[in-house]
Parts: sequence; structure tokens; C-alpha cells
Amino acid sequence: MSGGDRAAALEVDREAVLAANHALYEALENGDLEAVEAIWLGAGDADDKSGVVCVHPGWPVLRGRAQVTRSYMLIMANTEYIQFFLTDVECEVQGDVALVTCTENILSGGEAEEEGELGPLVGGKVVSTNLFRRTQDGWRIWSHHGSPVLTSGDDEDDD
Amino acid sequence: MSGGDRAAALEVDREAVLAANHALYEALENGDLEAVEAIWLGAGDADDKSGVVCVHPGWPVLRGRAQVTRSYMLIMANTEYIQFFLTDVECEVQGDVALVTCTENILSGGEAEEEGELGPLVGGKVVSTNLFRRTQDGWRIWSHHGSPVLTSGDDEDDD
Repeated sequence: MSGGDRAAALEVDREAVLAANHALYEALENGDLEAVEAIWLGAGDADDKSGVVCVHPGWPVLRGRAQVTRSYMLIMANTEYIQFFLTDVECEVQGDVALVTCTENILSGGEAEEEGELGPLVGGKVVSTNLFRRTQDGWRIWSHHGSPVLTSGDDEDDD
Repeated sequence: MSGGDRAAALEVDREAVLAANHALYEALENGDLEAVEAIWLGAGDADDKSGVVCVHPGWPVLRGRAQVTRSYMLIMANTEYIQFFLTDVECEVQGDVALVTCTENILSGGEAEEEGELGPLVGGKVVSTNLFRRTQDGWRIWSHHGSPVLTSGDDEDDD
């Protein structure tokens, strides 16, 4: 490939990875467990050898599709409403692996005390490192690590 | 390569990645900033195009060698003593990228109130996702994401 072709191919990869990253958060917003499962590596494999790894904010490491799926079931069961506003989205593709980092500005709500009312909404900030692998079906998540931002990070903006 | 050769080569890679992972924590224990810098991708490059990414527990995303190095300087300046006991270390190599997850059981201490005495020691548990890239000089860290474990994780042990 020429340099221009390589740059174009890389841009196609980047777009595809960012679309896959977006699809994860959209599936979570929609409470669509099947869509979440489909985005993770190893969907459709009877024996799970995907090696997927997931760390939710404050959680220990979850390993394998069964544990990861169960965690999303648990989160969805305890979340009435969730919306992600992604900022600082950065993506680097290296061969068949892509690394995405982003800040998840989260607005979520619990169960309403009275039917028909809106439950209490809380805002939160999580930073995530999402790792993707290229498969014949497209880019799939290999690893997700999200963690709460507990410092203001203002020092970092001084640069 | 035969299947046996492939398995042997993969095992060599795994050992090298785990050694690099171990070297990071050893360098931190020794307060050896130069050693920490050397383990990260892009050491020796005048213009930093390494794309390194780092999330310390509770911190926002740090990007590029300058920010990452400065963060370690800051951590070292505020840490009199630190020791890492790594558990649950898992490693998967995919081509020129390797993913390591581990639990950092940390024993650290602040400044002693009186000279010659030991400062207050605190224990902590952090889970980390460490991503490595193969370079001509060996495996180097591309991304580190550490986060505090706030839940017991006992539910996960029920499996």
C-alpha cells in the first residue's frame, strides 16, 4: 500500500472502532443486554475462549463472557435510566488491536418512589480504557476498564 | 511454525511480558523514575508519538510520556514507602500486543512524624489492566489503568 492508502485504511479502521465503542454505550443506554453481549469478543462461540476482561468502576476484575454478561445483567437490573455523554474520546489502532480511551459523563437514575415519577438522578464521571480486537465480524471488545474520577484533574489542565 | 513451535514461542512471549509487568512494580517500589520511564513505550524518542495512556486510581486519563512521567514523579514525591503484592496475574498475548490484568495489593507509607520512625502504613487494593506492545527493545507499556476495588467481590467467588 502507498502511504496515502495506508492512511485511508487506518482512518477506516478508526471509524469502525469508534462506531463499535459508541455501540457499547448505546446498548447500555437502551438496556439491551443482547446488543451488549454481541459487541464483546467471542459472541457465538459455544466454548468461551475469548479471554474477555472487564472492570466496572470500583469492581474487581471480571473474566470470561459469563461473568461479564452477568455483571451487565446486574447493572441493568439496578438501573432505571442511564445516559452517557462521552468526551475526550481518543483512538489508536495497532494492527488488529485498537485502544480507545474516553470519559463517560454519566447521568443515571434509580427507581422512582412513586409510579410515573422520575427516580433520583445522579451524575458521575468515569474514565474508561476500552480495548478492541479485529474479527471477521468486525471490531469486538476484548477488555473494558472503567474507574471513577475522584480528583478534579485540574492540575492536568494547567499544561 | 508447527503447533508445538507456536506454543513454545507464545510461552516465551508470555514470560517476557510478565517480566516487563514485574519490572514496572519493582521500579515503583524502588522509587526509580528512570526505570519506570524506560519501561513505557517510546523511551528514547525525541518527539513523543508513543500514544501512551495512563490512569492511576481515581485519576483522569493521562496521555503522552510527559504527563505520565510527571504523574510518577508526583506519586514518588508523596510516597515514602510502597510495596506491591501482585495476585491474580493473567496474561494474553495477541501478536504484538499483550494484555495483563492483576490485583495490586499495596502496602504504602507516608512520611514519619519523627525521624528514624516508620510512617503510617496503609493497605489498599487496586486492579490493573496493563497493555504492552512488542518493540525491537522488548515489551513496553502502552497503557496502564489502575482502579480502587470498592466492592468485596465476594459475589464473584460464588461461581
